[in-house]
Amino acid sequence: MTRVLVDTLKCVADLRWLKLFEVSYERPSGARGTWSLASRNATPRLDGSPLSPAAVFLVPLLRTPEGTRLVMMREFRIPLGDYEYSFPAGLLDPGESVETTARRELHEETGLTVTSVRALSPAVASSAGMTDESAVIVFLECTGTPHTENCEASEDIHLLVLDFEQMCALRRTPVKFSSKAWLITLLFETVGRLDWPAALLEGT
Amino acid sequence: MTRVLVDTLKCVADLRWLKLFEVSYERPSGARGTWSLASRNATPRLDGSPLSPAAVFLVPLLRTPEGTRLVMMREFRIPLGDYEYSFPAGLLDPGESVETTARRELHEETGLTVTSVRALSPAVASSAGMTDESAVIVFLECTGTPHTENCEASEDIHLLVLDFEQMCALRRTPVKFSSKAWLITLLFETVGRLDWPAALLEGT
Repeated sequence: MTRVLVDTLKCVADLRWLKLFEVSYERPSGARGTWSLASRNATPRLDGSPLSPAAVFLVPLLRTPEGTRLVMMREFRIPLGDYEYSFPAGLLDPGESVETTARRELHEETGLTVTSVRALSPAVASSAGMTDESAVIVFLECTGTPHTENCEASEDIHLLVLDFEQMCALRRTPVKFSSKAWLITLLFETVGRLDWPAALLEGT
Repeated sequence: MTRVLVDTLKCVADLRWLKLFEVSYERPSGARGTWSLASRNATPRLDGSPLSPAAVFLVPLLRTPEGTRLVMMREFRIPLGDYEYSFPAGLLDPGESVETTARRELHEETGLTVTSVRALSPAVASSAGMTDESAVIVFLECTGTPHTENCEASEDIHLLVLDFEQMCALRRTPVKFSSKAWLITLLFETVGRLDWPAALLEGT
């Protein structure tokens, strides 16, 4: 045996949007144990098949006559009990492609229209010790006038339309960032302006 | 009312390492709803107090006579049913500081010794729609000979000690990355070598 074997997968709590599972497994070393995981899936696959992204995470650059702006969001997050500084994001509808979700969520959350998808990450794991959740990071350019009139009433979303200096100042502010947002602002700071890193655009 | 009010917090499943909660809340708009969240905490705070990091996520540069190496890991993750490519990481023991956890986890998972902690992120949220989990990203330098002899038997960990070109090649490989790891390798590619981004070292 060279891989972990999953013996049983038991759903211990089944809420509409999130479920908790207990897995019993055997390591290649023979060590046995149990593992807890949260999932939005009715049955987590646990079979090593490709990650099926549940969500898109958008990094939008808005080109304006005054210069390029980064579109971020300040959104109330119940699990934090506070506002989180991050980017537009959302769950894929059943059967929806990553690019379609990206266009829909950008429009719903910011009123903006995608003009160009410049790069996609692979599906990357949010916190693989805890959950099978993954997301594709979509690096895109957009046009329009930002507004939140298309947001659902249940969302408490404030747009941040930032120039480079404002983004740098925000990263130094003691607020709550998503891990991806903090690293992406550091990435743009390292580029030295609001423009795509060369390594990201390879092959496009 | 300017913020979301949490009415009730109900624990619907209580496993040793992870719990599932259902929250009922009222938005400033008057909209009421329920939210599901997973947490490692017995009682998620949900009161907007500072994030209390549960974990450290280590980005270790190893200085060797042959040049600088990035120390990554390939670790079997039950929730993915597969290996994840990421960095050494671990949970804080009760009362333990971020820096102490970083030194302990680096030693346990890689056999290496921290020589310098160069920068810390703030506590950043892993996936704030789903969980209150947060981690501090610890950018550090280290010395020694990498090995996994200090790992717990339950861990299935393989070290990757990479030069810059090997790291760039890995990022282009269709494997499963943690979101933080994929962004950090893109960050080093943008720097153009295995060295810290200038913006990260400000004030150190």
